[in-house]
Amino acid sequence: MEVGFLGLGIMGKAMATNLLRHGYRVTVWNRTIAKCQELVALGATVGETPAAVVAKCRYTIAMLSDPSAALSVVFDKDGVLEQIGDGKGYIDMSTVDAATSSKISEAVKQKGGAFIEAPVSGSKKPAEDGQLVILAAGDKTLYDEMVPAFDVLGKNSFFLGEIGNGAKMKLVVNMIMGSMMNSLSEGLCLADKSGLSPQTLLDVLDLGAIANPMFKLKGPAMLQGSYSPAFPLKHQQKDMRLALALGDENAVSMPVSAAANEAFKKARSLGLGDLDFSAVYEVVKGAGGSGQA
Amino acid sequence: MEVGFLGLGIMGKAMATNLLRHGYRVTVWNRTIAKCQELVALGATVGETPAAVVAKCRYTIAMLSDPSAALSVVFDKDGVLEQIGDGKGYIDMSTVDAATSSKISEAVKQKGGAFIEAPVSGSKKPAEDGQLVILAAGDKTLYDEMVPAFDVLGKNSFFLGEIGNGAKMKLVVNMIMGSMMNSLSEGLCLADKSGLSPQTLLDVLDLGAIANPMFKLKGPAMLQGSYSPAFPLKHQQKDMRLALALGDENAVSMPVSAAANEAFKKARSLGLGDLDFSAVYEVVKGAGGSGQA
Amino acid sequence: MEVGFLGLGIMGKAMATNLLRHGYRVTVWNRTIAKCQELVALGATVGETPAAVVAKCRYTIAMLSDPSAALSVVFDKDGVLEQIGDGKGYIDMSTVDAATSSKISEAVKQKGGAFIEAPVSGSKKPAEDGQLVILAAGDKTLYDEMVPAFDVLGKNSFFLGEIGNGAKMKLVVNMIMGSMMNSLSEGLCLADKSGLSPQTLLDVLDLGAIANPMFKLKGPAMLQGSYSPAFPLKHQQKDMRLALALGDENAVSMPVSAAANEAFKKARSLGLGDLDFSAVYEVVKGAGGSGQA
Amino acid sequence: MEVGFLGLGIMGKAMATNLLRHGYRVTVWNRTIAKCQELVALGATVGETPAAVVAKCRYTIAMLSDPSAALSVVFDKDGVLEQIGDGKGYIDMSTVDAATSSKISEAVKQKGGAFIEAPVSGSKKPAEDGQLVILAAGDKTLYDEMVPAFDVLGKNSFFLGEIGNGAKMKLVVNMIMGSMMNSLSEGLCLADKSGLSPQTLLDVLDLGAIANPMFKLKGPAMLQGSYSPAFPLKHQQKDMRLALALGDENAVSMPVSAAANEAFKKARSLGLGDLDFSAVYEVVKGAGGSGQA
Repeated sequence: MEVGFLGLGIMGKAMATNLLRHGYRVTVWNRTIAKCQELVALGATVGETPAAVVAKCRYTIAMLSDPSAALSVVFDKDGVLEQIGDGKGYIDMSTVDAATSSKISEAVKQKGGAFIEAPVSGSKKPAEDGQLVILAAGDKTLYDEMVPAFDVLGKNSFFLGEIGNGAKMKLVVNMIMGSMMNSLSEGLCLADKSGLSPQTLLDVLDLGAIANPMFKLKGPAMLQGSYSPAFPLKHQQKDMRLALALGDENAVSMPVSAAANEAFKKARSLGLGDLDFSAVYEVVKGAGGSGQA
Repeated sequence: MEVGFLGLGIMGKAMATNLLRHGYRVTVWNRTIAKCQELVALGATVGETPAAVVAKCRYTIAMLSDPSAALSVVFDKDGVLEQIGDGKGYIDMSTVDAATSSKISEAVKQKGGAFIEAPVSGSKKPAEDGQLVILAAGDKTLYDEMVPAFDVLGKNSFFLGEIGNGAKMKLVVNMIMGSMMNSLSEGLCLADKSGLSPQTLLDVLDLGAIANPMFKLKGPAMLQGSYSPAFPLKHQQKDMRLALALGDENAVSMPVSAAANEAFKKARSLGLGDLDFSAVYEVVKGAGGSGQA
Repeated sequence: MEVGFLGLGIMGKAMATNLLRHGYRVTVWNRTIAKCQELVALGATVGETPAAVVAKCRYTIAMLSDPSAALSVVFDKDGVLEQIGDGKGYIDMSTVDAATSSKISEAVKQKGGAFIEAPVSGSKKPAEDGQLVILAAGDKTLYDEMVPAFDVLGKNSFFLGEIGNGAKMKLVVNMIMGSMMNSLSEGLCLADKSGLSPQTLLDVLDLGAIANPMFKLKGPAMLQGSYSPAFPLKHQQKDMRLALALGDENAVSMPVSAAANEAFKKARSLGLGDLDFSAVYEVVKGAGGSGQA
Repeated sequence: MEVGFLGLGIMGKAMATNLLRHGYRVTVWNRTIAKCQELVALGATVGETPAAVVAKCRYTIAMLSDPSAALSVVFDKDGVLEQIGDGKGYIDMSTVDAATSSKISEAVKQKGGAFIEAPVSGSKKPAEDGQLVILAAGDKTLYDEMVPAFDVLGKNSFFLGEIGNGAKMKLVVNMIMGSMMNSLSEGLCLADKSGLSPQTLLDVLDLGAIANPMFKLKGPAMLQGSYSPAFPLKHQQKDMRLALALGDENAVSMPVSAAANEAFKKARSLGLGDLDFSAVYEVVKGAGGSGQA
């Protein structure tokens, strides 16, 4: 199977590499074309422009850094739109907002092409290990055709219906994650002030029904006041704001998430927005932002 | 090693059985003495009364159904107090409140005996498999002497300091659990009302950083409105109330837990108190208690 | 003093009448021109179009039903813009969003005219009695010139600075009002369930430090489940949403308002959005929307 | 009419004075007997002991500083109990908890006497002006007999049913008051951070539907960071805790009050407990307790 791949950043490089290793013929393109060499060494062909890649391949995957890059690769000169059309599929795996995704979808479909958005859950390591979780939405036929490739890239993929649902699913997951981070923070603080060891609480939690990788990974760092930003607090708060707005639109009352959101806002007001979202622990402790990145 | 064992209910029988299987000589007592026969078949000796068991054994473990049974076995005629004294240890693994635990501790110590409370996390299956989590507090020397037995009964034991800390640790864990159950409920409801499949949300959650046994176990049942009470909602709410009171005592502000507590109270007001605590999902959905046990 | 007046709805008619009674010469315009007759009987002159009114008068006040009417009167053919210019002032007293207000402000200023937004607090009765509260923002010189007219229309006027601040002030006031309505609802419900008479609670409240006209007016109706919509719940919730968004923008954590907002959302989800905002009492009571308009 | 009066502190002296001025014959007693002289000058008689007062008067009112004084005056040697009996009434207007009130009620009734609790809302000034609000509960017949005296002491009195209801009513009122103080604080903070003048917000509030004496009195002081303790924050938080506990008992979900309570707890944790309860504004502002008493 021949696929195009646009964007060879940390994520894209790992994903394209996995496709090559599983026998796919891959034509790659990257804005800084030199980055393609590593993949050529593994058997990839280089396309001069996004349009050239789409012209050559039936399916083209994109993994770009942000909405503006995602739009540029499609709409600019020598972009995807110039060659997309009947019988060709475009798969954008970048994390973008619903509006960006809809705009690309409309344009691709108007040219006769098929489109899915397929943002992923997971970062560098899962990308290298082919262990991403893929949240796809849009053209169901195209999704079905991509399943073999998704099986190479991820441990699981989901088809979520209409365009925008991939982004929505990420919001819901992140909302739950944000509330849980607050719950953990409150528990650690209560333990500490009640004469129990917060570290022992983490140990007990890790043996029980609510044990989860996030508590295990973040908990010990929180106790040390170390908040190196894997996921910046201001982005977590933005996702909670958007999830609450989605709830507002659909008249879903979510008092626990709303309370958690206010704690993240308090953290922002204390200047903790660029730290990891676990820095909300500082708010619960009542400190004035003494954590370190 | 010779140990006494008082109380052969579901939990106690499983625990005493494990001790016998690992080579302990065990002298058992139960209020309904016939229940001892099964353990005699496995090699146990029977004690006529709690006092008789304590007289014979250096260490006596109790696993009783509630605070009143725990007090009765110690303070009644032919009870533990009549024989406890220098060189003997009493280990109460029942789940009781701090006041009950303190009362027993005081009485045992006054007679010259050693005491630890050691409530467990985990129910029938973990008890049978020796996979309990043991939250011990009180006499550190006695705890150290009991570690080999605890290693048979549980996958892990913790020494938490002074009497009462075992109960406190359970409250903190249950408070986090209660908030998480609300977060999950809000997320499921938001997914549903936003056009996403709640079942797919469960699938996505189970692959990510916040995957945990509770979401995996309870989630699918919640979607079916099935709330068979593994842990009754009214008990969960009581534990949140007590955890919040502990926070009040120590001036710990916990807005997320407080919001979760109010949702559990709303569930109680709708008559859902005897269902599983996951029935708080009905409150988030805005239903009037249509769930079934 | 000569003023123009655009819009003779319930509010506008009462306001223009007051100006006439206090000796102002008023040129009126209304989309349905027949509505002008009542004011002509009181001494008003009629202008054929908004442009004609502005051409004739140094100051023109508008009191229109919504943002779209406010925009139309300015930008449409024969609209305000055609005649506004140097030495003329335009005062929009309609309740509109910040974007609408800014758009009108920009256009008027570009033509050389002066502009203030001046939304009011108060409805029909205060309008008739000249007891409105006027929240003005924009051109300070124009505001100062309008103070005598504002003194006729309202019991007080405030100059709040730059365009948009009038709308913001209303949001803040309504946010506090919405939280207070929730507090009252919770108190009434607690009284009722605790064996106290909710009506007596209202009586006690009315004698103390937190006595206020809203409790006095709405309380008794709430106890009867009567929610005739003076201010529809869905608008109250929209204002709380916007106030919370303003807080988000400025990193102000407001957990009490956030909790109140979630209660209003719950009310919306139960179909109470078109009732008075006091119908949030039904949510606190746990009823399923049994109130009546 | 002849009444006894026990306790001549700030409140009691003002109340007994009012009774004398309105033609009541009053027999007074105070622990420090010298304090009686001022009232003797106004026509009062002195009783040597509480028992002596009760022996002489059909009705005896008490206004004591706290629960321990209230109990002591009844149960100690030469106390109320020694002379109370058939045909005599005892009216305790002190602010005490429900347990204290019940204990006194039981004892008085067992002797054949009648009892009402009648805590008041209002402090020194209203006491002097006969403008207290009286929250009575217990024996209805005795209440009816006391109404003429209550009309002298207060602007209004309420009969609330069974013993304990007076205290409960105060809790409900204070709960609403505490939530309103949070709402105001959030509004002031939002105004400030959004470029509006908090003082202008106070002015606007004072002209509208939610204008109330508390906002008018406390608001300006809050803006100056001045929190002279008229009602200490730790007492306000205690009352919210008790009100929430009352709600828990009766399964009343009160998320707004719960959120407000957590803010007061945060204030306590920052060392603001001895300031006025309006110091919760410091928490909303995110300051670390910079206010002054």
